[in-house]
Amino acid sequence: MNTKNVYEKMAELHIQLPRPIDDGACLSTIRPFGEKFLYISGIGPMKEEQAPALGKIPSQVSIEEGIEAARCCALNALASLHAYLGDLEKIKSFVKLIVFVSSERDFTSQHLVADGASRLLMDLFGDEIGKSARSAVGTSSLPLNYPVEVEMFVELK
Amino acid sequence: MNTKNVYEKMAELHIQLPRPIDDGACLSTIRPFGEKFLYISGIGPMKEEQAPALGKIPSQVSIEEGIEAARCCALNALASLHAYLGDLEKIKSFVKLIVFVSSERDFTSQHLVADGASRLLMDLFGDEIGKSARSAVGTSSLPLNYPVEVEMFVELK
Amino acid sequence: MNTKNVYEKMAELHIQLPRPIDDGACLSTIRPFGEKFLYISGIGPMKEEQAPALGKIPSQVSIEEGIEAARCCALNALASLHAYLGDLEKIKSFVKLIVFVSSERDFTSQHLVADGASRLLMDLFGDEIGKSARSAVGTSSLPLNYPVEVEMFVELK
Repeated sequence: MNTKNVYEKMAELHIQLPRPIDDGACLSTIRPFGEKFLYISGIGPMKEEQAPALGKIPSQVSIEEGIEAARCCALNALASLHAYLGDLEKIKSFVKLIVFVSSERDFTSQHLVADGASRLLMDLFGDEIGKSARSAVGTSSLPLNYPVEVEMFVELK
Repeated sequence: MNTKNVYEKMAELHIQLPRPIDDGACLSTIRPFGEKFLYISGIGPMKEEQAPALGKIPSQVSIEEGIEAARCCALNALASLHAYLGDLEKIKSFVKLIVFVSSERDFTSQHLVADGASRLLMDLFGDEIGKSARSAVGTSSLPLNYPVEVEMFVELK
Repeated sequence: MNTKNVYEKMAELHIQLPRPIDDGACLSTIRPFGEKFLYISGIGPMKEEQAPALGKIPSQVSIEEGIEAARCCALNALASLHAYLGDLEKIKSFVKLIVFVSSERDFTSQHLVADGASRLLMDLFGDEIGKSARSAVGTSSLPLNYPVEVEMFVELK
């Protein structure tokens, strides 16, 4: 039984939410629809304190770095959700992730990279809330040369 | 008038549902949201009885094999939906498909490949239920070297 | 305060809706779900009066042409929405765009291309309605060699 809430889990795992990213000039990071749904824009693995690994997997960014990048995308999404909702406990379900992985043409382990995002959500929220439907796909390239971009769709309680 | 139900249609067309795939360690194959919606994870063309064609279209996998692979992805999704719902007649609408096609850089007939998935749904459920919105896109590569990956979003009655 | 409606804005900006595209044999351009939602299929930058630029960005299609192509995709979507709804003022929110950009492997400005679609929506509908969540991703190739494909998800009032 996971009776700890998500913020207690974060403290336990030494996870700190980064500063939420600003909306782009042409996009909303978080967009509500219906009564209880949020779409989150495709988010990259940018970090405040250091440049993330950039480029394609596995030639320029290792699988391990890609997994970390996917986790970082999800953490950036959580930071935006926290800023938007005030309380991450309002999330009922991570319904769907799409994890786009900037891939060399012979790289076929996008699912392993995507696990970096999924595991963070499952570690913090448990399987019932955090184990989403998911697509992991390779892309020829991503904005700003990010190795991974994650979009999410969330249901609120 | 299509008065046959989907299981009668399957028998008529000699289509058998495969064994539904297991959830991944980090993803739910089918994820409900709201009162009447299901998101289905990106699903590949894996088969129980034989290895599917693997690789990019059209160099390693022909267009015809790609069409069959897209159909196989959709059939795998139907197997999971049948296991989840108990009765495929509960489906009101296949709202949306995204068909990711592992493509050589000069391959530009992703829509023909995607038709393999769409035609199966239309053949079994009729146009009103089965003729979804759809995006067909090329990708540089896909997990496990699958030539096609299909994700779906379904509305229930 | 944007008190002009979308059709007045179109007249002011000398924007004419093209003829809406026909449904494909295997897909519905617009697909409703729930009470107030519409999914729009991935739409390309085809034009009635002239062939659009075709190929990958930036080798065969310049970034500027790509931005125009993304705008054209969004305009085609608006034409279909107008035909479907009768009145574009029924749109409450452009919830989500995915902009697929046919990219050379070293092209990493998919977001700038995607802005072509987003700016059109914001220019015509204002930020509250038009500033969607968005993912911009590179693809190795797209159907019919289109440089851009845009899918949308819309909420109605």
